[in-house]
Amino acid sequence: MSYEGPVQDLIEEFGRLPGVGPKSAQRLAFHLLTMDAADAERMAKAILAVKERVRFCARCFNVSEFEECRICRDSRRDSTVLCVVEEPRDVMAIEKTAEFQGRYHVLGGAISPIDGIGPDQLHIKELVARVGSEEVTELVLATNPNIEGEATASYLARLLKSMGVRVSRIASGLPVGGDLEYADEVTLGRAFSGRREV
Amino acid sequence: MSYEGPVQDLIEEFGRLPGVGPKSAQRLAFHLLTMDAADAERMAKAILAVKERVRFCARCFNVSEFEECRICRDSRRDSTVLCVVEEPRDVMAIEKTAEFQGRYHVLGGAISPIDGIGPDQLHIKELVARVGSEEVTELVLATNPNIEGEATASYLARLLKSMGVRVSRIASGLPVGGDLEYADEVTLGRAFSGRREV
Repeated sequence: MSYEGPVQDLIEEFGRLPGVGPKSAQRLAFHLLTMDAADAERMAKAILAVKERVRFCARCFNVSEFEECRICRDSRRDSTVLCVVEEPRDVMAIEKTAEFQGRYHVLGGAISPIDGIGPDQLHIKELVARVGSEEVTELVLATNPNIEGEATASYLARLLKSMGVRVSRIASGLPVGGDLEYADEVTLGRAFSGRREV
Repeated sequence: MSYEGPVQDLIEEFGRLPGVGPKSAQRLAFHLLTMDAADAERMAKAILAVKERVRFCARCFNVSEFEECRICRDSRRDSTVLCVVEEPRDVMAIEKTAEFQGRYHVLGGAISPIDGIGPDQLHIKELVARVGSEEVTELVLATNPNIEGEATASYLARLLKSMGVRVSRIASGLPVGGDLEYADEVTLGRAFSGRREV
C-alpha cells in the first residue's frame, strides 16, 4: 500500500531524516503538497545551497561559507583561548551565551570505541598542531558531559597539558531553574564536588 | 546569533514545517550537511516533483499523478459504495486495513465555524453531484471522531439520506489492544452505546 509515485518518494525522503518517523514523514509530505509552489521551491533550493556552498572551516572545522568560518575570520576574537567542542551546533549553543570571546575547535564527534571512533577519527591532530603553532595559552574542554564526552575531555587534558597550556573543563551541576529534588544522583554529586565558595 | 547564510536559511525553511521546532530544524539542517550530495539532491528533487506532478483527483480529490487517482481509475473497485473522509491521508489509512473495496470522496477538511470552514469550503457539492450522477447506493462517513468530524458527519447524513442512499458512520469505541481502565469516559460511553450482539 503506497501513495502515487512522487508523494511516496517524498515521504521516503523525509523518512530518512533523523527523528522523522513514518507518520511525521507523511505529515510533512502532505504539508508540502498544500504549500505554495514558490515556498516548496525555496526549500528545495535551500537544501541544494547548503550542499553547494557550505563546507567546514579549514582552521577550526566549524561550518563555513568560506575557507575560514566567521569566528576564525573575526580579528576581535581572543586567539589565546580555544574552546574545544564536539559538533558545529555546540559552537552556536556557546555563542548564544555570550560568555566566551575566544575561538573554537570542532572535533567532529567524541571518542567512542563502540562506534569505532578513536582519536584518529577526530580533528585532534589538527588541534595539537594549532596549540603548537598559534598563540594559544588556554583550552576550555566543552565536550558533552556524557561518557563519550568525558572520555574525550580526559584524553585531551592528558595530551595537551604536557604542551604547557592551561586546560579547563566546563562545569557540571544542577541546571539553572532545575529542582534539587528531581536531579539525578550523578548530577547532584557533581554539583557537590564542584561547589564553589561564595 | 545565527549560522552562516545557507545553513541559517535551511534551518529557517525546516522550521516552517509543521511540528518542527527550532532544535529539530537545526538537527535536520546539520544532518543534511553531512549527507551525500547525491542524497540531498534527491530530496530537493522529490520536493519539486511533488509540486510539479501531484494534483488532486478530479473525481474524489485524493492526491493523484493523473486526472483521476489510482483508486478512481481501478475498475475492480466497487463503485456503489463511497467512503467519505477528511484528508487524502485518511484514504491511505483505510486502504491499509484492506476492509473497504469501494471508492472514496475526500472533503478537504471538516466543518469548523471557528476556522471559517463551512460546507461551502469543503468538496460537499461535488459529493452531492456524485451521489446524483454515479451508481452510489451506500455512503460510509469516515470523518474523524472529534467535534468537527462529528459535526460534518451529522451534516452529511441529514443532507444525503434524503437522496435515497444508505448512510453509515464508522464505529467509535475502545481501540483494539487498549485497556478499559485507561479509556476516557466519552470513548467508553461510545463503546457501550455502540455494543453489538455476539
